[in-house]
Amino acid sequence: MGRRVTVYEVGPRDGLQNEAAAVATGDKLALVAALAGAGLSRIEATSFVSPRWIPQLADGADVVAGLPSVPGVSYVVLVPNAKGLDRLVEALGRAGAGHPPVAAAVFLSASETHNRKNLNRTPDETLRDLESLVPAARGMGLDVRGYVSTVWGCPYEGAVDPARAASIVERLLALGCHQVSLGDTIGVGNPEQTRRILERLLRVARPDQLALHMHDTRGTALANVLAGLDAGITTFDASIGGLGGCPYAPGASGNLATEDLVYMLHGMGYETGIDWTKLIAAGALAERLVGRRLPGKALQAELARAEAR
Amino acid sequence: MGRRVTVYEVGPRDGLQNEAAAVATGDKLALVAALAGAGLSRIEATSFVSPRWIPQLADGADVVAGLPSVPGVSYVVLVPNAKGLDRLVEALGRAGAGHPPVAAAVFLSASETHNRKNLNRTPDETLRDLESLVPAARGMGLDVRGYVSTVWGCPYEGAVDPARAASIVERLLALGCHQVSLGDTIGVGNPEQTRRILERLLRVARPDQLALHMHDTRGTALANVLAGLDAGITTFDASIGGLGGCPYAPGASGNLATEDLVYMLHGMGYETGIDWTKLIAAGALAERLVGRRLPGKALQAELARAEAR
Repeated sequence: MGRRVTVYEVGPRDGLQNEAAAVATGDKLALVAALAGAGLSRIEATSFVSPRWIPQLADGADVVAGLPSVPGVSYVVLVPNAKGLDRLVEALGRAGAGHPPVAAAVFLSASETHNRKNLNRTPDETLRDLESLVPAARGMGLDVRGYVSTVWGCPYEGAVDPARAASIVERLLALGCHQVSLGDTIGVGNPEQTRRILERLLRVARPDQLALHMHDTRGTALANVLAGLDAGITTFDASIGGLGGCPYAPGASGNLATEDLVYMLHGMGYETGIDWTKLIAAGALAERLVGRRLPGKALQAELARAEAR
Repeated sequence: MGRRVTVYEVGPRDGLQNEAAAVATGDKLALVAALAGAGLSRIEATSFVSPRWIPQLADGADVVAGLPSVPGVSYVVLVPNAKGLDRLVEALGRAGAGHPPVAAAVFLSASETHNRKNLNRTPDETLRDLESLVPAARGMGLDVRGYVSTVWGCPYEGAVDPARAASIVERLLALGCHQVSLGDTIGVGNPEQTRRILERLLRVARPDQLALHMHDTRGTALANVLAGLDAGITTFDASIGGLGGCPYAPGASGNLATEDLVYMLHGMGYETGIDWTKLIAAGALAERLVGRRLPGKALQAELARAEAR
């Protein structure tokens, strides 16, 4: 078929952020290098949120300074506010002129309560902040990606009207985001809902301006991806090994595992540019770094097959 | 939407058969009763394969004799050969005239090597055996379901031509099977392949004559179910909690978990007749009976949410 899909790797940030134990900076960079070497062309590397809130990523500046230059690979770093952007720009300055491409990412929730709990403001207040933050980042020559959480459902409010995500996406694109990733933050989505959400969202965005960030908490992530593929979406977020766990249960699943996504995409004839053997090796490295089995199913199947040989 | 889907529960047979430890007969019947009480209307209860090969199910006759009568619920029991059918008929005799409806199920593999390893005969030889077995069972008033394994791929041969499954399904239906369940025995399938397989199979069978039996070894089971739903399939096999494990890896996933399937179906507006709360209780019971966490994701998410309350 020759259709191309971009797998957006979020493990080093979204994954490690949710691990109880902090991983050493050098180990994070080894994981990033393994992912880039496996052909992941977009890698969410770290975050400049306050280290008081997320100590696991307090070494963001060192991670940015150490990002490996790999042809075709660019990185993205979360910036919650002007201070985060300043820290990113400073880190890029330290990294020197030859640093690899790094984009900024901004985020908010589609549901009011989740945004309040996460950012201590209403979604509208966050959007007003982003009205200066996104153009400021663009003015510094940075591409900006947007994230909208709780699009499929909110842990506090339940169902969320797709119109709320649509109006946020419309504003983020108008502000200069090149792409907005829609998150099923608590993994409650089903493909029928995904079809409805995308039908609404594709009235305000082109397919390439949207990405899906599905969680596999109830096993539905790839079915939702399939609905996304059928709707023309070509970018999907995933986390190596399913790194990041679940907000509810230790050992249970949160992020869609990169290997599961790539296994399905390759089987369906999509081109991702990813080398399967190197991807599994990156998953095995991620397991060693966090010191536990990761929930990714294709990873476990491959590791068990390798052991059985 | 009001569309109806039948969830075919295989946990008590296909699940427990693959558990290392045998579960006591009374506990098996408690699980069957919990499943029937939750609204599962088709339950694969046990198997009359040789106890030398599968000691976990050596109590098949006692299970059949103890099956609870629940309005709308029928059972199915695997019979590999004439001897198995004799044992089933004898067990039904012991159960008395008032026993609940029990169907027989026969099975073979689409791939030659898997059938040889499993049944010590070629698929054609097995089909010749079934030419007497299926009519014999029908002559005794039993409905007969067929199972075809390795339709999506064989652990020994790799890819399997859908034409092989099509010719087997055609013969099983001609022999008097009311439905044939297509198995992705090693969990390698992807939705594009499922579309191709069903496109081929629906030339020889009506949608209601087919069922999908997907394994979630690589996380793709529900995406394959979605492709099946889109093709008009209305019966899907699943195992409570994902009971049954994986042929490769202890703790890894084999059977699609009933809760994951039902979660997605209910979210999409399909009617199954299944009570969600009672289904989760049945999953929790299955965990207690085998003494370990089961891989079903929706089950784990629900149990963790309940603990957090």
